[in-house]
Amino acid sequence: MSTMSSHPAVDSTIERVRTELARGIGAGKLITDLQRRRTYECDGLAQYAVVPALVVLAEDARDVAETVRACAESGVPFVARGSGTGLSGGALPHAAGVLIVTSRMRSIQQIDPIAQRAVVDPGVINLQLTKAATPDGYYFAPDPSSQQVCSIGGNLAENSGGAHCLKYGFTTNHVTGVDFVTPDGQTVAIGGMAPDPPGYDLLSVIVGSEGTLGVVTRATVRLTRLPQSVRCLLAGFPDTDSAGAATSAIIGSGCIPAAIEMMDVLAIEAAEQAVHCNYPAGAGAVLIVELDGPGAEVEAQFAQVEAFCREHGAFELRIAANEQERALIWRGRKSAFAAVGRISPDYLVQDGVIPRTALPEVLNAIAELARERGCRVANVFHAGDGNLHPLVLFDGDVPGEAERAEEVSGAILDLCIAHGGSITGEHGVGSDKAKYMPRMFTEQDLDTMQMVRCAFDPAMISNPGKVFPTPRLCGERSGRRVTGTRPRAGAGVAKVF
Amino acid sequence: MSTMSSHPAVDSTIERVRTELARGIGAGKLITDLQRRRTYECDGLAQYAVVPALVVLAEDARDVAETVRACAESGVPFVARGSGTGLSGGALPHAAGVLIVTSRMRSIQQIDPIAQRAVVDPGVINLQLTKAATPDGYYFAPDPSSQQVCSIGGNLAENSGGAHCLKYGFTTNHVTGVDFVTPDGQTVAIGGMAPDPPGYDLLSVIVGSEGTLGVVTRATVRLTRLPQSVRCLLAGFPDTDSAGAATSAIIGSGCIPAAIEMMDVLAIEAAEQAVHCNYPAGAGAVLIVELDGPGAEVEAQFAQVEAFCREHGAFELRIAANEQERALIWRGRKSAFAAVGRISPDYLVQDGVIPRTALPEVLNAIAELARERGCRVANVFHAGDGNLHPLVLFDGDVPGEAERAEEVSGAILDLCIAHGGSITGEHGVGSDKAKYMPRMFTEQDLDTMQMVRCAFDPAMISNPGKVFPTPRLCGERSGRRVTGTRPRAGAGVAKVF
Repeated sequence: MSTMSSHPAVDSTIERVRTELARGIGAGKLITDLQRRRTYECDGLAQYAVVPALVVLAEDARDVAETVRACAESGVPFVARGSGTGLSGGALPHAAGVLIVTSRMRSIQQIDPIAQRAVVDPGVINLQLTKAATPDGYYFAPDPSSQQVCSIGGNLAENSGGAHCLKYGFTTNHVTGVDFVTPDGQTVAIGGMAPDPPGYDLLSVIVGSEGTLGVVTRATVRLTRLPQSVRCLLAGFPDTDSAGAATSAIIGSGCIPAAIEMMDVLAIEAAEQAVHCNYPAGAGAVLIVELDGPGAEVEAQFAQVEAFCREHGAFELRIAANEQERALIWRGRKSAFAAVGRISPDYLVQDGVIPRTALPEVLNAIAELARERGCRVANVFHAGDGNLHPLVLFDGDVPGEAERAEEVSGAILDLCIAHGGSITGEHGVGSDKAKYMPRMFTEQDLDTMQMVRCAFDPAMISNPGKVFPTPRLCGERSGRRVTGTRPRAGAGVAKVF
Repeated sequence: MSTMSSHPAVDSTIERVRTELARGIGAGKLITDLQRRRTYECDGLAQYAVVPALVVLAEDARDVAETVRACAESGVPFVARGSGTGLSGGALPHAAGVLIVTSRMRSIQQIDPIAQRAVVDPGVINLQLTKAATPDGYYFAPDPSSQQVCSIGGNLAENSGGAHCLKYGFTTNHVTGVDFVTPDGQTVAIGGMAPDPPGYDLLSVIVGSEGTLGVVTRATVRLTRLPQSVRCLLAGFPDTDSAGAATSAIIGSGCIPAAIEMMDVLAIEAAEQAVHCNYPAGAGAVLIVELDGPGAEVEAQFAQVEAFCREHGAFELRIAANEQERALIWRGRKSAFAAVGRISPDYLVQDGVIPRTALPEVLNAIAELARERGCRVANVFHAGDGNLHPLVLFDGDVPGEAERAEEVSGAILDLCIAHGGSITGEHGVGSDKAKYMPRMFTEQDLDTMQMVRCAFDPAMISNPGKVFPTPRLCGERSGRRVTGTRPRAGAGVAKVF
């Protein structure tokens, strides 16, 4: 763990930025004290910690733009941070850089039920937006588990998902515009209230770019109509194979539930100990299936889902009769990650994706891997879209166990890739998984992403070291720099041919 | 109208490319004869015509890559063309360049109903894919009016929509992967069968980039489950105001029909003359509303839609009792563009977007504009998503009428922009609307797009002159070129900090 820079050149550069910002946006928004800076040394991925050289508590878009401009002028890296709940270290600070914290930017600027849009500051908490839109009959669909505390800016950076993204898609499907500060400190407006403007779809590149292209200072997001009806069912299965087969049958029928979640026997045990959710006794796996939509549709599909579950071996079905029973079913699922702490001193949360049809095979391979390596793996996951969250249990006090857990967790990603899947479903690449990128992408693929990175950020100061495995200069073999500098307005107006 | 280059330097450069391609991919795939080249001088926007210097009839991805590489080596521009049905001149050839025709690349490589994906060549016809997927219970959702003849590669380039994109989204929502030849001739794989891979979402930039970033040689697209039930209704209203109000009421209720189409009195008159569709007599506007989905949902929502139509003044409602009656309702709508030829010697098709809530206001303003300028404008459009298609009628044989029609058509776009809308809904910017881009975007916004253009295509050889208003060098004011060259694998591996 690095703590802070003690390199004199870095110190004097940061001091220059600090002085400029004290003058430009006010010293009251800057944190220089080491103890206070230490508060920001990690995000939700606590394995890594780096103390930032300077922290800026931005209060508005101008503060962000001024900070980025000051960084650009001095060649100082910057990292944006919302609530710091990310699980891949995307908001891990840079030891010689500025951490731009957006959590004071919490205003919901507009809720427009007719246009079905909201305009929000990046620090607005995900669930707050839903609460604000509910009186008009709307909500914000992306619902990561951290939705009570995570920021919408962070959701955009990581393209967050959640239990309901099977039906409703990821954050990228719910954003139609941003104000965005590019790494040279300019502010541009991309998109707006309407979908699909002409020109390149830059919005989709910015959403999910994990802070490597600049900083979002305002977002226009879709509001989704609250469903007329929601029904939830809990089904106990003898094993994950049968629960996986039921999942495939449901999706294959053309029905798209709002959520299909699976928990295996170890995850059920943990949840039972923690919140006494009273899941079906003796279940080797449970499925939670939720349907929402017009009442008539939900009723018709619910009968089908029940039939598919029974057909594939469900020995107990419980249907929530009211909102209270529904909450009880979800309590076990939502507490599962934390609950694992009841049955193991430590654990790693993995995040990988496989084609839904490969679920039984990959779950069996994970079990086999756990047996071979002598460790326990609990599975709690979004079965409907094949987004696995294996929890690798270990005891950090036993020498070698942490390393073994890391290895097993990495081997699970290899299994995902081997089955045509992906190294992350919704947590992002961040600091944690950059090393796995070459297992999914060829050099050419990564080079193509790098071209875009260099177009936005030729100096590589926007969240450097994240996402990409080998931080490269924006250059080529000949030694000629690919400067990638933003073309200035009115420059070079000439036809090539 | 330019016909062909007679500049000796251009001729010798093209000759070099031709010689290299004759050796590399075979002379049989090249068209050099002027008369045969002339066949390709325009796409669906016949106002512009340019004869390409060389035509390549590519048969596979390798042919495309070889052609692009030969162009890159000689600095020759290239333009990709599918079926040539685009309405914005996106496939207009370059007089000193190579036209790469993909219509021989027509293989549906894979249909995977379990993964709900198809893998296709870019020249595959939109409707062919639906026909091939139907036996498995699936279809390809994007349905531009030209779907019987347009290519999926063209759909990707222009991010095509159609009558059903209100519910199902644009082409970009139905593509999960491409093989793509960058303007230096390299082939990269972007995305694949699964949605949302890690790294930048380059796929979304490529879809809708109108051929300015490279050429798609293979696409993996979503297949959509055929709906269990489809119901279609035709409603006659006294005027477009009342039909617009009914549209807003339907959408505002949370219901998302598969399509809501509107035709005004002039469009109805034209369709009636052409196909005798027998729409309600005396209607000032008709709405076609189609619902699809699970039977129970459709029935419940259909009753609501009927009620909203009556409430807002529909004086006649016809509900299709079977597929034949449904086809009859659609026949009037689908024939409307061509039918306008019955009531006017010539017409311009415009494509603009407005917020749905502004429909009555903008339609009245268009009528006012038509009155003022003494010309007729027929409206046939996707009312549900505010995507207007005003048809400006004129007689090209009457001096001044063509110019006036152009002016009125342009003024309609200004109306769209003034009401917070967009200069194109689904036809693209292409050659036709580049000049309108600065009315929607600031210099900074366009510069940000240009950065990405330069990252992919620093030599500006991929469909130059399209989309962007002022073709600029990838340079900046100081005269230093922004080379934007692709970073080579393994080059410059060094940390910036």
